[in-house]
Amino acid sequence: MRASIVTIGDELLIGQIVDTNSAYLAKELDKLGFDVDTIYTISDKKESIKRILLDQLDKVDLVILTGGLGPTKDDVTKKVFCEFFDDTLVVNNDVLVHVTTLLENYYKRPISDINKQQAYVPSTATVLFNPVGTAPGMLIKKGSTTYVSLPGVPFEMKTIFKGDLSTYLVSNFQNQVKVHQTILTYGVGESLLAEILEEWEENLPSDMHLAYLPSPGSVRLRLSVSGKDRKVLQERLNNILALMPVKAKECVRSYEDVEFPEIIIKELQIRKKTISFAESCTGGKLAVLFSTVPGVSSCFRGGIVPYATEVKTSFLGVDSAVVDEFSVVSEEVAIEMAKEAQKKFQSDYAISTTGNAGPTKGDSTVEIGTVCIGIATPTEVYAKTYFLGQPREKVVNSAIARGLELIYNEIIKNKR
Amino acid sequence: MRASIVTIGDELLIGQIVDTNSAYLAKELDKLGFDVDTIYTISDKKESIKRILLDQLDKVDLVILTGGLGPTKDDVTKKVFCEFFDDTLVVNNDVLVHVTTLLENYYKRPISDINKQQAYVPSTATVLFNPVGTAPGMLIKKGSTTYVSLPGVPFEMKTIFKGDLSTYLVSNFQNQVKVHQTILTYGVGESLLAEILEEWEENLPSDMHLAYLPSPGSVRLRLSVSGKDRKVLQERLNNILALMPVKAKECVRSYEDVEFPEIIIKELQIRKKTISFAESCTGGKLAVLFSTVPGVSSCFRGGIVPYATEVKTSFLGVDSAVVDEFSVVSEEVAIEMAKEAQKKFQSDYAISTTGNAGPTKGDSTVEIGTVCIGIATPTEVYAKTYFLGQPREKVVNSAIARGLELIYNEIIKNKR
Repeated sequence: MRASIVTIGDELLIGQIVDTNSAYLAKELDKLGFDVDTIYTISDKKESIKRILLDQLDKVDLVILTGGLGPTKDDVTKKVFCEFFDDTLVVNNDVLVHVTTLLENYYKRPISDINKQQAYVPSTATVLFNPVGTAPGMLIKKGSTTYVSLPGVPFEMKTIFKGDLSTYLVSNFQNQVKVHQTILTYGVGESLLAEILEEWEENLPSDMHLAYLPSPGSVRLRLSVSGKDRKVLQERLNNILALMPVKAKECVRSYEDVEFPEIIIKELQIRKKTISFAESCTGGKLAVLFSTVPGVSSCFRGGIVPYATEVKTSFLGVDSAVVDEFSVVSEEVAIEMAKEAQKKFQSDYAISTTGNAGPTKGDSTVEIGTVCIGIATPTEVYAKTYFLGQPREKVVNSAIARGLELIYNEIIKNKR
Repeated sequence: MRASIVTIGDELLIGQIVDTNSAYLAKELDKLGFDVDTIYTISDKKESIKRILLDQLDKVDLVILTGGLGPTKDDVTKKVFCEFFDDTLVVNNDVLVHVTTLLENYYKRPISDINKQQAYVPSTATVLFNPVGTAPGMLIKKGSTTYVSLPGVPFEMKTIFKGDLSTYLVSNFQNQVKVHQTILTYGVGESLLAEILEEWEENLPSDMHLAYLPSPGSVRLRLSVSGKDRKVLQERLNNILALMPVKAKECVRSYEDVEFPEIIIKELQIRKKTISFAESCTGGKLAVLFSTVPGVSSCFRGGIVPYATEVKTSFLGVDSAVVDEFSVVSEEVAIEMAKEAQKKFQSDYAISTTGNAGPTKGDSTVEIGTVCIGIATPTEVYAKTYFLGQPREKVVNSAIARGLELIYNEIIKNKR
């Protein structure tokens, strides 16, 4: 079954916001067995929407559009739907009741004329209930193509997808099964990994596809295959995986489609150990990465961002003599930071970062791109220095990748 | 001048990663006066790339493609370029020298056969130098369309764009001027704002376009107009802005295209004041938002994420009797957290967050979506409770928006 995704909005075409909706939809459609052929981002002008509706007709089985459903004048998707499907807007009473209740309870005010417009939908549309917002989703079929329109606000779009829409898709589309095997590697570059895998990759069955997805410090491989029977496909993938060269296997951190923090959290939880962070140049990003994983409270004690140098000494407890002697970006200070974080947060492990991520030099005279990472474990504490180049974004992400790799290796040294 | 953006990669079509490249390119092209018509995300299969190259021929003036340039087998853009432009790959000596040096200095190893492939480019292509990676950019013209291929790794793509590519675009394209006026509002919902602006919006000149971009707690308006003379256009926008209803003007926080943290940082710097955070349910996101703004060190003292309840008392210094009496999610604890952050980080202002963002209840029995925000100023300290619904992402982002709005109002109370 073929699908396409269309995100609507001039703000996307001038880069005012990053489109996260299409990645979410692509992932969910893939799980349901759809092949997403193309993702389009188009203007919210009438002609652009009309053109894409016509272009997709009988070309794909399913088109999901997001955006252009708000109550304001620049939202025109509903009008275009009426023209394209030769339909008229009629009030939907369920939606009207819902919008009225939502406004009274949440905004403590009566429904306005502009709000009322949200309850109007094309007469032949199937309404997809939006429990968390005022704009409903809509579904209409034309020819062999099913068109779905969802609001552009990410959590509203996701809520409708998980609710009414996925129920509809599961019961109305007979899908082929697609199985992806993720192989998350750390500590080896893309081209070196490609060299290691060259022979193995050349001998892959012709219906299997291998993709490389590099990011600072890690390469995510994805091996995919389609067919009828999920179990048979997974078995085939497993057999091929078993043949992967040992040199590549040594770099694998997970065969699940997870991020590295989740892997570390799992290893900590198995061992009933805890972790904390003292982050200067990474600005709290390690804390954010860990705190967004559900159930992390059993192993994540917390973090500190001692941005000002004085805070490192007065609050975190780093010895000011060490700062004076070695400068704030030094392995000595990184060690002190990791030790103090471990102590103050009462954690088994700690990671610290101090460095200069640029664009300008701060309280330190070291080269931009220099980062010292401190690691505290139940038995030792040490630090390493990295030169991570530029720009800032790369330095921060690379520092995080190095810190995670170091602490992971320490944690798995201990028996489960 | 019309442009289109094409991001290539199967990992995008199955939602494994979010495409941030197109938002960056869209923003930069808009600044240079290009109208981005459509953003396409397509498979890295040969046929898909070939089809889009043909489809764009003589339809737009400029096509920028990203991705599909790595040294691995799933990267095929260069091969397709050769077929489409009827060209062959030849070694580029400048690139070869650069790749060799980069590998020796950075990876401390000699160039491999796979690395050498990076130095091969179509013979008629203009090479765009990539100082931070091994894959060069390429530019070839066919008919009236200029095709540009850039690597998919974001910082490599950006570096090439800022360097060779923008130089080329500025000197080879005579562009129309486009001016956007951002109007960042806080504390008013999209539909209420639309009601306030209804008459004003209806009387806008026909060549001006107003767009609404809502996010938790704020609505960003964008008023756009195109023409020949930037100064004239900006003046016309200013005149229209002056006519905006007072009720709307009262909600405006900025007329610049900035995020709210930047506005607050500016107000703090003007007053020579400082800020710190104690974040429980927001997990360090305030610290990350502030620490990524260049030059923030003059006003950002730091933050703490006291994730475990004990850390709130033992390290941050919250009175454990208060936690016991009122529970960890309470205005009383939020007040203690803000007070202690202000003290420990020696800052003039502090924001604290404690709440239950879900998906499961943690150390607290309050409803999921409940957040208490504490505010400490040089003269007072208080807290407010918000019910922010679900899911987690919305709760965290809404809590941040409320906290920023509260602290902003406190800061601007004081004379500059």
